[in-house]
Amino acid sequence: MAQVNITDKVSKARLQENLNTLERFTDSSLPYTRRAFSSYYYEARHWLYQQFQDAGLKTSVDPAGNLIGRLGPSGVPSVCIGSHIDTVEAGGRFDGIVGVLAALEVARCLQDAGIELSYPLEIIDFVCEEPTIVNLSPLGSRIMSGDVTSEMVNIASTPFGESLPDAIKRLGGNPAKISEVKRDIGDILGYLELHIEQGPVLEKAGLGLGVVTVVAAPCRAAVSLVGVADHAGATSMLDRRDALAGAAELTLAVEKIVSSPDIVQESVGTVGSLKVSPNMVNIIPGRVDMTVEVRSTVPEALEWAREEIETTLNNLAARRGLEAKIEWLQIEEPVPVPLDMQNIIAQAANDVGVPKMSLASRASHDAAKLAPIAPVGMLFIPCMDGRSHCPEEWADINDIITGTKVLGQALLRLDEYLSTKL
Amino acid sequence: MAQVNITDKVSKARLQENLNTLERFTDSSLPYTRRAFSSYYYEARHWLYQQFQDAGLKTSVDPAGNLIGRLGPSGVPSVCIGSHIDTVEAGGRFDGIVGVLAALEVARCLQDAGIELSYPLEIIDFVCEEPTIVNLSPLGSRIMSGDVTSEMVNIASTPFGESLPDAIKRLGGNPAKISEVKRDIGDILGYLELHIEQGPVLEKAGLGLGVVTVVAAPCRAAVSLVGVADHAGATSMLDRRDALAGAAELTLAVEKIVSSPDIVQESVGTVGSLKVSPNMVNIIPGRVDMTVEVRSTVPEALEWAREEIETTLNNLAARRGLEAKIEWLQIEEPVPVPLDMQNIIAQAANDVGVPKMSLASRASHDAAKLAPIAPVGMLFIPCMDGRSHCPEEWADINDIITGTKVLGQALLRLDEYLSTKL
Repeated sequence: MAQVNITDKVSKARLQENLNTLERFTDSSLPYTRRAFSSYYYEARHWLYQQFQDAGLKTSVDPAGNLIGRLGPSGVPSVCIGSHIDTVEAGGRFDGIVGVLAALEVARCLQDAGIELSYPLEIIDFVCEEPTIVNLSPLGSRIMSGDVTSEMVNIASTPFGESLPDAIKRLGGNPAKISEVKRDIGDILGYLELHIEQGPVLEKAGLGLGVVTVVAAPCRAAVSLVGVADHAGATSMLDRRDALAGAAELTLAVEKIVSSPDIVQESVGTVGSLKVSPNMVNIIPGRVDMTVEVRSTVPEALEWAREEIETTLNNLAARRGLEAKIEWLQIEEPVPVPLDMQNIIAQAANDVGVPKMSLASRASHDAAKLAPIAPVGMLFIPCMDGRSHCPEEWADINDIITGTKVLGQALLRLDEYLSTKL
Repeated sequence: MAQVNITDKVSKARLQENLNTLERFTDSSLPYTRRAFSSYYYEARHWLYQQFQDAGLKTSVDPAGNLIGRLGPSGVPSVCIGSHIDTVEAGGRFDGIVGVLAALEVARCLQDAGIELSYPLEIIDFVCEEPTIVNLSPLGSRIMSGDVTSEMVNIASTPFGESLPDAIKRLGGNPAKISEVKRDIGDILGYLELHIEQGPVLEKAGLGLGVVTVVAAPCRAAVSLVGVADHAGATSMLDRRDALAGAAELTLAVEKIVSSPDIVQESVGTVGSLKVSPNMVNIIPGRVDMTVEVRSTVPEALEWAREEIETTLNNLAARRGLEAKIEWLQIEEPVPVPLDMQNIIAQAANDVGVPKMSLASRASHDAAKLAPIAPVGMLFIPCMDGRSHCPEEWADINDIITGTKVLGQALLRLDEYLSTKL
């Protein structure tokens, strides 16, 4: 049992009210849409800034646009908790948001309980976690780990017609000083993130808390298949070079490859986007542009899947007389969560008395982006039917409360662990 | 040998010049695009009207918008030759066009040779053969056979933002009198159409002329598959309801079904159009809307293929937890060409001395639409690599000349046959 306990300070009313308020910052014609750098995002950030201040946090926006509320002195290593409040288009009310509001609640509880940590605490709302800025998202955490540089920021723009530096400036950031956002190893002593699972594992297991063991890595490719756009009546089956038939074969191959017995529990693969040209009922498709994504928690599985996909593509293209191209736009490595961080979270779950399990995160998160420079830990709570990135996304308030309590206890345990270790 | 012969009157220079002129009526940014009721089509029709008149034809536009040049008296049964001059988007310079310009050339030759047929002759440029007006194309020939009524025309519109009646009026037609366009059995004593093959059979066989035995029937369906748009990382392969994976399976099934050994030489099947929602790299496709087309010259094969496609769709939807719908928008029967008409064309090929073969038409044509009310015959000439409905579509002028000669001789033989028969 941790020496201190703040679980009885967590306020359901306060958390529920904040969730209710934040969900109203949305494109009302397409709930719940609050994409980074949209007008709804600026309004939500303004509100959140005020909440941080009201909670007694020393509040600021760093040069990259991350919103940071601080307890304790600046200029020395800190412990951090947080997530993000931006959404995908027609996204949900919990992905990222729960992590930020729970972190804010924990900061309030610490003060309500009169507990002072051994290390400064930062509550971070990372800017633009969702893929709003092509190739740069998650933006805030990648800038903090040094993976996105000011040069990359300077040439980017938002989908809303603004340069990214201007958009960051409007958020209170300072694009000229982006390099100062980068933290070195040792600057962040530990980062904890509470998140909805975005999958059905916890719900199916009937458990209230998940301790993340590893964050899966996404690898994404752009694939094009070029055949010949011919008359759909007059061209015999043997004379066709049908790009869509080839794309269909690849789509099913991706499904089969990641479902191979050896890697079935660890890998997923998706053809999410597919565009046909000329896309007419009576013309054989002459070209298909599609995306292929594979994710795994096992590096070898990911590498094997990528090779299998390339081999399959080349074989089907040769057999069908198609011209095939595959370009891997993103190749990432799975991020293992340090065992010490897993243990701290597991013990915190015991403090709260919630049944837990270890599980992999198949979605990526800010925590994975900070992993190269800091020990990270992730806590999952169940979400209904495992659904996410859609308006139906739902997490029960009681699970959110439980998750917040575990986050608070994990923070206390981390602080204690760091004090003991040093 | 036919008693008369006009083969020596066919002018290569005249035909070539007309082909050159007609191809210039195109959207210059997307050659060769002259869709029915587009501005390029009106200009081309204006030019063609003048050509018909210059050739000494009694020229008029019927109430449906068909351009008709006549030799001989009105109000009595006639023999007809023709095709269409509209194109698909980014189509070619020969599909339909060869049939109209060859028919015009034959009319000139008859007069140059001082030959008067026993029956009146109509040269017809059918309005809108290509699928420009949804569900009503081929428009002119279907109105003539009574398959499209004035009620259907009155509620339709063009893709260029005009009501179909207004568009027909601008062409010189009279929408109020569309019912008068319908011909009864006996009104057309025979219809002959010269066309590029739009497939590679003649070219591969090294033969200059094809005698069409049967015109394949297209059956077209709209298919929708609805699954669940979930997070592409967090949703395990076993928990997915991926609409695109289902669509891929159906696409490959269509290919396999029409390639079954029993029907391989007679049937084709195509998924030409496919739309994915939400179509994002990291979201499992929640919905796919696609088209399925099958064509065959064998009615039983067509029926069997339709049933197989429906069964496959239902099975894969049940297995994958998808909601599937299939709606057959068009179900047609293959159109056999009367043996007498095939014989007349074969004898005409002998007159001209061109090696010939019998073959099926896998594409549909105005001739197939007139078949319910008139004996029809079709002549094919080779086209390069069998390609059609694309800018690369190409037919050699010498093959066009040969085809025109055979068309002329077939017309003479048809006129003779009709005179003898009655």
